[in-house]
Amino acid sequence: MSASTDTALSATSPDRATLRRLLDAPHEEVRDKVRERLCDLELPPTAERAAMDHATYREQVLSWARQLSAGRATGLGFPTEYGGGGDFTGSLAAFETLAMGDLSLLVKSGVQFGLFAGAIHQLGTTHHHERYLPDALTLELPGCFAMTETGHGSNVQALETTATYDPDADQLVIHTPTRSGRKDYIGNAAEHGRLAVVFAQLEVGGEGHGVHAILVPIRDAAGRARPGVTIEDCGPKAGLNGVDNGRLAFGQVRVPREALLDRFGRITEDGEYESPIEDDDRRFFTMLGTLVQGRVSIAGAGGTAAKTALAIAVRYAERRRQFGPPGTDDEVLLLDYRAHQRRLLPRLARSYALHAVQQELVAWMGESFGPDSDPFDDRRELEAAAAGVKVAATWHATDTIQTCREACGGAGYLAENQLTMLRADTDVFATFEGDNTVLLQLVAKGLLTGYRDQFGDLDPLGMVRFVAEGVWDTVVEKTSARQLVERLVDAVPTRDDDAGLLDREYQVELLRWREEHLLAGAARRLKRGIDDGADPFEVFNDCQDHVLTAARAQIERRLLEAFDGVVRRCEDMQTREVLDRLCSLHALAEIERDRGWFQEHGRLSGERSKSIITTVNRLCEQLRPHAGALVDGFGIPEQLLDAEILGAG
Amino acid sequence: MSASTDTALSATSPDRATLRRLLDAPHEEVRDKVRERLCDLELPPTAERAAMDHATYREQVLSWARQLSAGRATGLGFPTEYGGGGDFTGSLAAFETLAMGDLSLLVKSGVQFGLFAGAIHQLGTTHHHERYLPDALTLELPGCFAMTETGHGSNVQALETTATYDPDADQLVIHTPTRSGRKDYIGNAAEHGRLAVVFAQLEVGGEGHGVHAILVPIRDAAGRARPGVTIEDCGPKAGLNGVDNGRLAFGQVRVPREALLDRFGRITEDGEYESPIEDDDRRFFTMLGTLVQGRVSIAGAGGTAAKTALAIAVRYAERRRQFGPPGTDDEVLLLDYRAHQRRLLPRLARSYALHAVQQELVAWMGESFGPDSDPFDDRRELEAAAAGVKVAATWHATDTIQTCREACGGAGYLAENQLTMLRADTDVFATFEGDNTVLLQLVAKGLLTGYRDQFGDLDPLGMVRFVAEGVWDTVVEKTSARQLVERLVDAVPTRDDDAGLLDREYQVELLRWREEHLLAGAARRLKRGIDDGADPFEVFNDCQDHVLTAARAQIERRLLEAFDGVVRRCEDMQTREVLDRLCSLHALAEIERDRGWFQEHGRLSGERSKSIITTVNRLCEQLRPHAGALVDGFGIPEQLLDAEILGAG
Repeated sequence: MSASTDTALSATSPDRATLRRLLDAPHEEVRDKVRERLCDLELPPTAERAAMDHATYREQVLSWARQLSAGRATGLGFPTEYGGGGDFTGSLAAFETLAMGDLSLLVKSGVQFGLFAGAIHQLGTTHHHERYLPDALTLELPGCFAMTETGHGSNVQALETTATYDPDADQLVIHTPTRSGRKDYIGNAAEHGRLAVVFAQLEVGGEGHGVHAILVPIRDAAGRARPGVTIEDCGPKAGLNGVDNGRLAFGQVRVPREALLDRFGRITEDGEYESPIEDDDRRFFTMLGTLVQGRVSIAGAGGTAAKTALAIAVRYAERRRQFGPPGTDDEVLLLDYRAHQRRLLPRLARSYALHAVQQELVAWMGESFGPDSDPFDDRRELEAAAAGVKVAATWHATDTIQTCREACGGAGYLAENQLTMLRADTDVFATFEGDNTVLLQLVAKGLLTGYRDQFGDLDPLGMVRFVAEGVWDTVVEKTSARQLVERLVDAVPTRDDDAGLLDREYQVELLRWREEHLLAGAARRLKRGIDDGADPFEVFNDCQDHVLTAARAQIERRLLEAFDGVVRRCEDMQTREVLDRLCSLHALAEIERDRGWFQEHGRLSGERSKSIITTVNRLCEQLRPHAGALVDGFGIPEQLLDAEILGAG
Repeated sequence: MSASTDTALSATSPDRATLRRLLDAPHEEVRDKVRERLCDLELPPTAERAAMDHATYREQVLSWARQLSAGRATGLGFPTEYGGGGDFTGSLAAFETLAMGDLSLLVKSGVQFGLFAGAIHQLGTTHHHERYLPDALTLELPGCFAMTETGHGSNVQALETTATYDPDADQLVIHTPTRSGRKDYIGNAAEHGRLAVVFAQLEVGGEGHGVHAILVPIRDAAGRARPGVTIEDCGPKAGLNGVDNGRLAFGQVRVPREALLDRFGRITEDGEYESPIEDDDRRFFTMLGTLVQGRVSIAGAGGTAAKTALAIAVRYAERRRQFGPPGTDDEVLLLDYRAHQRRLLPRLARSYALHAVQQELVAWMGESFGPDSDPFDDRRELEAAAAGVKVAATWHATDTIQTCREACGGAGYLAENQLTMLRADTDVFATFEGDNTVLLQLVAKGLLTGYRDQFGDLDPLGMVRFVAEGVWDTVVEKTSARQLVERLVDAVPTRDDDAGLLDREYQVELLRWREEHLLAGAARRLKRGIDDGADPFEVFNDCQDHVLTAARAQIERRLLEAFDGVVRRCEDMQTREVLDRLCSLHALAEIERDRGWFQEHGRLSGERSKSIITTVNRLCEQLRPHAGALVDGFGIPEQLLDAEILGAG
């Protein structure tokens, strides 16, 4: 056991208000307003929402969303001239906080204000903004973001829906050629949507220009489907049943030329296509890039849902007893059991790490999308970072909520204790706004290309193509891989003493070394495959796991550095001491999880690896008395911690 | 890469009929009958069941259960004189197969026929059997198994409900003293149950005799709660909403003396308590032991649900394409991606392993509960094995169904594709019939005590007490641990060549070595703690993770040995070859998962550890063409594979 882990933590708990300020910064006011608004809605108890028939629930969610928009809580990120609040980063923090309430309401709002209005704002030009944004922001005009098709979710470049320009009528003809080309899983489509942003292959004058977004009315004011538009209901889902997901198919539906959202590509009055970006791929990814806020939003929401679950499970574990010394009636609190600490506390630590990286990401978004930003800026590094955090946060939500459910036993399975609904509603977060596995590939590709070649697409083979174009040199240059490896061999000694496990520099160096090593190794394998003349798909596929692991390694390093930043920003020494241990727990739990790899690569001896396990145990024990304060720091209003098991025993 | 893994598998697929016979044995007929019965029910599509309001769903499930019982499909395990089928092991195979249908129906049947009728059968005597079993088996008399209380689920010995004998009235008085003493999560309680088997602390003549089971009427024929009985509805749950779980509280409710299920303890006409088992603890665990079939049943059902999910996800991955070589329209099938193979195929292999160990367990149950069995036999080894398989199978279900859901993307989130409902319905399997973590402790305790001391309870401190009583010697004697460790150091060389990874003996030896090493280490730590005079709870708690890991290690060794047995029983060489690889994939995926531990303990060098990863990849690649046949081998009727994504594209 490390000498330093033996140092007991001070008996006094960390200061809850300090924790909350640290986590809420720099959007304390916005977050508090959202908390208030949510409490004002007086949401019915979870059990009631869980049992609501879906039609009623959908109407209820629409009405809550209208209440929020009436209070101008939903247009925060939009320009004031269209009824917005002009606070872009604030709107991201607001969305993150909104996830403390009903998650169908969250997603309905995300569809309407983030995706639908966001696409009009980002992909359209002034005449679209003026005509549609005010009504979109008040929910007078409910809309859809119709990108995904039955046959294509991740590979959006291969969408089948077509938008063909008819010069005689000066119209665009929207058409769904096959069953797999139906727009699928589209929020707001089954019941409420009137206008849809439809992504389709644009053809002008017989020439294809790739995927563009077009505004297509799908229902009239009375709610009837427009001629040529076929609408199906996706039916019940695992969760989010207050959102009306549906399918859209278009049979030669005509819209005026102006319906094209034309910021990045327009059709002139003469029927010519023109775009400020010549390359089809590059244009497509510039368009997609403007939508990165969806991923950032979902990452934040997933993080919040995990926090709610932890708050419930930790508090329950502080009151529920189970077994005890024989001959007495005293039973032991669940949270006093090591196995229970092991289930909850490393996940609590990770929640703090994710919160920290999310704060960084939001600030970065502010710089990149601020008033002075250039839409043609290269945002690929930000996009890759957002993808990585989205992956980490949403899988963390799935894993953590599930663990909390099990940690609450049979009570966790009852809707009245909120965990079941959190679990079911967030399940799809790992899939929508980019499938997590595909997003990991995007992260990896960013790493491998050093963000400097042509615009990155989601196609895995693109990665191999980059390699063929000499990426190996890029990687070596970027990371100075070989040299670095040697440097790190010295910097991270394989020592058998246990000193220094709590040293933040040591922890970060281990994660950094893993990242660089995996990256250099993946690049080398790809390069070798191509040099050997192997089939590019085979080359990629043979490395796929390696490549995904490299992406994860980068995310983990980012998480740790971000958490460390929060620790450093904490000025209350008592609180900081606890956060510092929590950060070590986060770091060592990750190193413990991957200790097979670290041993394989000579970074940990067997003995040192074992002492990491011991140290994780010790940290759990030390942090256990502070667990309650740490979940209180999340600032979830009591009213929203809707769990019967936390009521009077 | 191992030379032997390079050997390509024969191109022809394994024989589906052979696979199915292997898996269905020795209950082919029973399983086919249950398949037929399920198809005859013509269950509505999953999406419809998912959206049904809960009241309707509950009535629907009751009516299906009645149809099954009218066809005598549900009383298979009971004696023929009461309307049963007299085929105990057949009934376990039937329940496993029943999990191919609606899981609310499964659990409703489990409550009525397994728990309620099973308790009357196992804990009652002839007069109870004659009076209640016939009606219980036809569902004329719906009943409850009222054991769990709000405050006590795992520590059943500490239940609060009391049953006090009143000699003047010759009655038992059933009483719920506190809110935490309410019976909770009780299936059949909220709506349909009329009679309940209530577990309560029995007091006769002022003396406590521990927990006993008493038959207490809770509703009259018209469905009204009986005087003194308070019934609450547990409300909506994550899943299983066709089952009416409720809470029961008793206010001095009086029942005749004969209501005591008196096989293991009775009250004489003179008002004296007598029992064939003197020790209260031992009597209690003998009673509980008769209920082991519940755990075996849930293990089988969890396994089946995971198979259904795999069948859907594998078939979908064989038809859905995503991305492809640039410049062509050909996209690649999901199942051709290594990452996708990695998600599905090791879990498919594990499903086979679990099926194999379940077959063994059912046969063992037949021996132990057969017509010639003695109820006072020591069944602790069987109980521990059942607990272990229950833990492995139910966590496998949770993990596998979740993975399959994600592997089907957005489609996986729609109820119409069945995965969401499988996931939600099986979620509680990790909790009911014994919380998985607590059951792991039971397994560990069995290992540590060599099944030979006093009857094992679930109390973790009991484990420490055993140690204080000299368990270390028992363990050493049982495993010859020290000697064994030395022998194995020779037997499992740390070699750097890759030969032999596919050698089954090598795989089994690795798992066996881990099991013995963990067990001996845990015993040593417990012993040392006690010898040092430490607080027993601290001693236990400090080892809890170690102890749970030892339990898991034993289960894993059992799984592999059982799977190997199936491979050996396969007489079709083509099929056997595939199964043999599948078994290696199962073994190596487990070793890969825990390669950190194997390296720490000098059982794998870094190089060999890496080559295990490579071999797992290679095996996935080799087995990929056979994945479809392997899921077909599960024999799930097409009609029950209710997933729109498998329909016409």
